[in-house]
Order: sequence, then structure tokens, then C-alpha cells
Amino acid sequence: MSLLVVGSIAYDTIETPTARRENVLGGSAPFFAYAAGFFCPVQMVGVVGADWLSEYTEMFQRHNVDTTGIEIVPDGKTFRWSGKYHENMNDRDTLDTQLNVLGTFQPKLPENYRRAQFVFLANGAPSTGLAALDQIQGADLVVADTMNLWIDIARPELDALMQRIDGLVINDSEAKMLTGEINTVKAAQKVLTMGPKFVIVKKGEHGAMFVSEYEMYVVPAFPVENVVDPTGAGDSFAGGLMGHLASQQGNLDAETIKNALVYGTVVASFGIEGFSFDRYKEIDRSNIEERRETFREMTAF
Amino acid sequence: MSLLVVGSIAYDTIETPTARRENVLGGSAPFFAYAAGFFCPVQMVGVVGADWLSEYTEMFQRHNVDTTGIEIVPDGKTFRWSGKYHENMNDRDTLDTQLNVLGTFQPKLPENYRRAQFVFLANGAPSTGLAALDQIQGADLVVADTMNLWIDIARPELDALMQRIDGLVINDSEAKMLTGEINTVKAAQKVLTMGPKFVIVKKGEHGAMFVSEYEMYVVPAFPVENVVDPTGAGDSFAGGLMGHLASQQGNLDAETIKNALVYGTVVASFGIEGFSFDRYKEIDRSNIEERRETFREMTAF
Repeated sequence: MSLLVVGSIAYDTIETPTARRENVLGGSAPFFAYAAGFFCPVQMVGVVGADWLSEYTEMFQRHNVDTTGIEIVPDGKTFRWSGKYHENMNDRDTLDTQLNVLGTFQPKLPENYRRAQFVFLANGAPSTGLAALDQIQGADLVVADTMNLWIDIARPELDALMQRIDGLVINDSEAKMLTGEINTVKAAQKVLTMGPKFVIVKKGEHGAMFVSEYEMYVVPAFPVENVVDPTGAGDSFAGGLMGHLASQQGNLDAETIKNALVYGTVVASFGIEGFSFDRYKEIDRSNIEERRETFREMTAF
Repeated sequence: MSLLVVGSIAYDTIETPTARRENVLGGSAPFFAYAAGFFCPVQMVGVVGADWLSEYTEMFQRHNVDTTGIEIVPDGKTFRWSGKYHENMNDRDTLDTQLNVLGTFQPKLPENYRRAQFVFLANGAPSTGLAALDQIQGADLVVADTMNLWIDIARPELDALMQRIDGLVINDSEAKMLTGEINTVKAAQKVLTMGPKFVIVKKGEHGAMFVSEYEMYVVPAFPVENVVDPTGAGDSFAGGLMGHLASQQGNLDAETIKNALVYGTVVASFGIEGFSFDRYKEIDRSNIEERRETFREMTAF
């Protein structure tokens, strides 16, 4: 099995009510890839500038992630995002965005990536996702993430993308925005009429939901007491989820889907306990399995 | 086993984005009592005016609820509440409150209520709860609900009440308000330092959480597509929860607690599918068991 991710790679500057970190690794593709790397080999496609640190390449390579799809633009700078979290650690304001090399990114997939069975188009311009799909042949499962920005400024491309994916991962507020529905279940069901065969609605600290024509599965969030930095939680959730699906050869039976939701939830719950990849670097698969069992004891009835 | 509830009884006028109902039955005690009545016999204490309809007394009596604790003030009017729900069906504005007979309510427990094993002090003035507890001897389990109003205007009485209860049921935003903590888990843990041995945090459409010193259990909400009227959902949740605990003789092992959370969730999910008690009147215990099984299939991993 092979799991390919295309997405943004960023240097983030993050302020929380109690701390600040400058130029730490972030972006949708890295969080997804690292989270998925706990479950299966991952191929990462993205673009960075001359300021890319080789230690990050090594970190990914040690963690099941093929980095030959990371394009390094020698005279460019890596995408930068800066944000400030509110007291509640859920809402945040974007303070600054510098697209840099991401602004003109055209994904170029290495030859051996083009037969990926499992594909995740992490948050990024829908046109990037479409350009990537044009280079991929016969994937078993294609899932995309999106966000309010693209619903606002790239709706035609997003609509075209939705015709070419099997599943959409989306925040609850963005699902409502995309569909005009005020109820989460209704919004998810309406997304199904736009192309995807299933929708996974992310509700942040409130869990997630899988909806297809005939099925609905729900999972609460794992309760985290000490939220240090929620950046990338949604991407990590998707990484754990897709990583498990890929490790099960894309089987979409009820047990596999529910376990995928749970692995996504558990992996993301570790990520937010530290800035950037700090907490991930401390854990391995056994920590994930242990917390999964704790989660099962918290929820099973 | 006997389960006693003390709380408000109301005539509600409710506006939603699509409909309006005037002077329908509401209040914390009725929603709790009806929900609990699916699981065990209930004794209800509250006050109403001359405008109380005997059809409501009959509805409760047919549904496992002893109504001899309902005091009828012959020259008074029943408490009235009027509210308008926002488009999202979660937020609401209170348009009018007329305390009427509730303003001077002093609970008087019938003799046979005073040895209740299980007691729930539904949302109402903490002084009302304290006055009720003064009349009860040797209850096995005392649980109270509270809300922002009492945290604001009756904090000393609420603090005193918290010393005399085993468990507190509270909304997540109100738990944060009560404790000054911004994280739900930390807020729940801080409540444990204020008296109660356990806290049940209600998160509305996002589910609920049980926290004691050594345990944490979480349950998502049952996804409801057609939310007609959320009024009383929290009281109904508590009713299903306490009804199940009482039916299990107050056993507080992990399985019983998790099942109590689930029954509360499932019962409340029916209630919000209709105005007032409309939907409850259409269902019986078998519908609850059926939806519980659906919920298990949605969540078990």
C-alpha cells in the first residue's frame, strides 16, 4: 500500500495565551504525513524554499515518510503563517500569511508516486489538488480536505475537485458554509450530493462524524487537559484516519471506518499537547495503542 | 428504588426559525421526570398556579411519575418563560420571564418522598435545593443541576449546596464560568474541589462527559437531523441518566455510568425532535432501546 499526500508546508509563528514559537514546522502536508507515518509508508508532495532545514527531511525519513516529492526552490522562501490563539484555545486570528513559494506551486509527482493507491489532498488550493490528480492513475481512494478560504475564492475549482474525490474531510462550520445548511447532519448529507461518496466532519474538541448515504459514525474527541498548540490538529486527524485506512488496504467496512476515526482522534490528541511536532517526536505507535485503549474504556458501552 | 426531582414547572412560549408554540408545558422538573419515568418510578416536587391543566397531571401519572408533590397555588399563575432560538438552534434569547408562583416557592415534600434514595435537584434556585435537602433523610445519591443565573446571583447558596451533593450536572460554558478555567477537563476537575464527587458536563449537540477523581467517560451526542425544539434537552438528559442510575440501585461502576450517559443522550435526542413533550408522547422504552443500539453501532470500536 502507498499513501500519498499533497499539501502546504509551512513555517509557523504561533502565539498562545501562555507562549510563543517562531518559525516552527507546520503546514497541512507535514502534520498529515507525520500522523499517517505511524500507520503506513507515506509519500509527501509539497514545496519549500532555500530556508528548508535538512533536519526536517531527516525527521520525516526516519518516520516512514518518503520526501522525494518535496520540491526545494533554491531562490525561494518557504510559506509562512502566523496566528494567535484566543484564551479558549479554539478560536484563532491569522496575523500574517506570506505565500512565498506556495504562491506559484505546481505539484510535480515523482514517477513512483503516480500509482499511489491512497491519496490525500491536504488543505490547499483546489487547483493544486486537481493538478495532482491529473498525474495519478487508478487510485483506490482519494480524499480531500478543504477550508473556508477555498469555498470563498475558488468555488468552481472546489466543485470540480469534489467530482473527482471519494471523500471530503471538512470542519463542521465549513460544511455548513459549503452547503447553506445549519444542521451538521443535513450539511454532511448535502455534501454527498456534490460528488463525494462520504464526508468526514471535524468538530475540533467535540469529535468527528463520518457520513455516507447509508451510514453514520460518530466519535467524541479524546479529552485533553493541557492543550498547548492546536495547530495542525485537523491535518493530523486526517493523517491518522487515512493512515489506518491505507494500512487496511482501503477496506471501508464499519469497523475499519470507526477505527480510522478513532486513530485520527487519538493521534491528533497527542499533537496538540505540544508545539509543532514536539509531542509527536516523543511518542511511538505503542503510545497510540495505549491511548486508544484508554479511549475505548472511556466510551464503550 | 425511588427517584425524587425538585425543580421548576413552566409554561413556555417558544419561537424557532420555523415555528412558534405558546404556553406549552416546560420546566426542569417535568422534562427530567418524564425522561426518568422511562426507567423508574419518579416523585416530582414543584409548584404551579390555578392555570395548571389536569391533563398534565394525568400524563405524568400514566408515565410512572407520582404528582402528589406538585403544589397547586389556587390564586397563583404558573411560571412562564418565553424564548427565541437562533438560526443555529443552539443559541437562544430569553424574551420574557414571569416567575409567578415560582418566585415564592418553598418546596414541601410529602411524607413518603422524604426517604427517597435518589434525589435530583433540577435547575432552580440553590436555596430551593437546600430547603428540599433539609427534608430528606439518608439519600444514597444526590445530584444537582445549575446554571449561569445562580452562579451570578446566588453563589454563596450554590457553594453551600455543592457541599451537600454527590454530583453536579452542568453545561460546559457554565463549568468554565463557575471555575474560571478555560479547558473543559480542567474546569470539571476544579468543580471536584468544590464539593461534588463527580461532575457531568453537558455539551449540548456535542455530547457529555463524566469526571470524577479517578475516572473520565465521554459520550458524543446522538446525531439528530431534524431539531425541532431543544428546550429541556439538558433536563431530559439528566432524567435519562438518573433514571438509569436509580434503576441500577445507584451502582456507580464504569458500565453503569457509561450506560447512564448513553440513556440520557438517547432520551434527550428524542425530546428535541418535537416541541414540548410532543415527541415523548409518541415513544416508549422499546424506541429508546432501539436507538441505543443504533448509537452503539455508530460509536463502538
